[in-house]
Amino acid sequence: MAAAKRITGVLSPVVTPFRKDLSPDAGRFVAHCKWLLANGCSGLAVFGTNSEANSMSVEEKLELLDALVKGGVPASALMPGTGACALSDSVRLTAGAVKMGCAGVLMLPPFYYKGVSDEGLYRNFAEVIERVGDARLQLYLYHIPPVSHVPITLGLIERLLEKYPQAIAGVKDSSGDWNNTKAMLDRFAARGFDVFAGSETFLLDNMRNGGKGCITATGNVNPGPIDHVYRNWMAANADQLQAGITATRHIVQKVPMIPALKAIIAHWGKDPEWRTVRPPLVELAAAQERQVIAELEAAGFDMPGLAG
Amino acid sequence: MAAAKRITGVLSPVVTPFRKDLSPDAGRFVAHCKWLLANGCSGLAVFGTNSEANSMSVEEKLELLDALVKGGVPASALMPGTGACALSDSVRLTAGAVKMGCAGVLMLPPFYYKGVSDEGLYRNFAEVIERVGDARLQLYLYHIPPVSHVPITLGLIERLLEKYPQAIAGVKDSSGDWNNTKAMLDRFAARGFDVFAGSETFLLDNMRNGGKGCITATGNVNPGPIDHVYRNWMAANADQLQAGITATRHIVQKVPMIPALKAIIAHWGKDPEWRTVRPPLVELAAAQERQVIAELEAAGFDMPGLAG
Repeated sequence: MAAAKRITGVLSPVVTPFRKDLSPDAGRFVAHCKWLLANGCSGLAVFGTNSEANSMSVEEKLELLDALVKGGVPASALMPGTGACALSDSVRLTAGAVKMGCAGVLMLPPFYYKGVSDEGLYRNFAEVIERVGDARLQLYLYHIPPVSHVPITLGLIERLLEKYPQAIAGVKDSSGDWNNTKAMLDRFAARGFDVFAGSETFLLDNMRNGGKGCITATGNVNPGPIDHVYRNWMAANADQLQAGITATRHIVQKVPMIPALKAIIAHWGKDPEWRTVRPPLVELAAAQERQVIAELEAAGFDMPGLAG
Repeated sequence: MAAAKRITGVLSPVVTPFRKDLSPDAGRFVAHCKWLLANGCSGLAVFGTNSEANSMSVEEKLELLDALVKGGVPASALMPGTGACALSDSVRLTAGAVKMGCAGVLMLPPFYYKGVSDEGLYRNFAEVIERVGDARLQLYLYHIPPVSHVPITLGLIERLLEKYPQAIAGVKDSSGDWNNTKAMLDRFAARGFDVFAGSETFLLDNMRNGGKGCITATGNVNPGPIDHVYRNWMAANADQLQAGITATRHIVQKVPMIPALKAIIAHWGKDPEWRTVRPPLVELAAAQERQVIAELEAAGFDMPGLAG
């Protein structure tokens, strides 16, 4: 059934290119998505936190999604972020993604109000599922309390999975807390609930405990080596491979992640406009960019084929 | 100039009525806005936190705003919330409000990313002002760190006020920290920057220090007595009047504020559908509602004329 076609492996929350006037740049977006799929990504979690997704309107996201599919990116590789503060926005974006044939959607909880109840969050996800009303919907819950400040608890997952076992497909755990990922795996993995680590630093641990891969920021720039760990997690040298991708991650995350990813793509792709971010984010300071590029170069990092 | 026409006094962040199917109810919204203006409110900060504004799409808000103006609510009394996570949404909603002739807009910072820089927030507000490009724009900054987790610092206000002295009209301070309100008053009030307390509990203090009024949740149900304090802040019995409205506030805020306001309107207006909230919020439990209604009745609370 649906589970057979589910995405596993390494997914990138694709950074969104903006032109100097801050408008989304569909051409560069399609090109970067194709590079990612050709270089190790199994899937593309477009419109994630690292995509500046919440800095774009629903219309802008639907237009970009349409441009991807028309530009030759297979919808079966797409897991767009579709969770918004407004129920009406979440429904519209999710319905649009399902209609285009996307493999799944990655859904934030409504994140304006803090301290809301599991009952309120349950109603939010249930309303989206009911209103979209499409058996093809594969909904991945997005747990990222350091940013959203609204957690997806184990109790909420239990309740949703019990009521909607076909639609609730899994989770991205960006808590940064391995104990939480482990608890999700122990409790839900055997029930067809696919757990993705929110960072490749947990990829090997996740695979060894029944997880399905990772959805990770640095997948934007380092997909090949991360995919290599995914494919060789049972190999004798798996820990050594994991240490390599963790080291690269640590270089990148010394500076603000989203502008860093864009600066790295701009540098290795020889395309300065890629540095553009939308407010409230700002580009890396020149010294920060020099540091991250120099450390990556010293570590032998590369993005093969990016600069055409 | 523009300052002469600015709203002062008591503003209500108007709660938004939803039908049982969760669609916004323009008819009940117009009626409640008219009741508020007839019963003590100088202005209406529609689409605030208490309005579940972020639980609605941009389209839903523009339609409600249109319904208000067409329904006879003067645009000169309106200060809609127009700040969103997405720059494109903030621009669209702000431009729409200005075109309809709204007295001002109350603008949240983009609130998804946390720990963002003042430079990034400055760019956000500056882009909105520049892109709206209308000299009529009166922008009130919305400082509500307990919910947004993204503060409007004094340094940010300074910079915006210096660059856009005509457009930057003031602030709503919902920090709950009187020292912060006082710092805003001391530093900016004499420069035509209108400080509104985010709760009537600070109304008298705010007026005594050069503030312009308050924008307060309980303005939805208790506008008359709050307006009475506003109009009599220099009277000999001002502290006693203040104690009265503070006591009412304390009764209401013992339970979750937004569903409480709706339950109170449902009860005194004899209109049960008013209890409806959108996820992720939930209605009051029956026992909570009984408690707040009983305590208000015991305190002699009333909403004159609400039940037609």
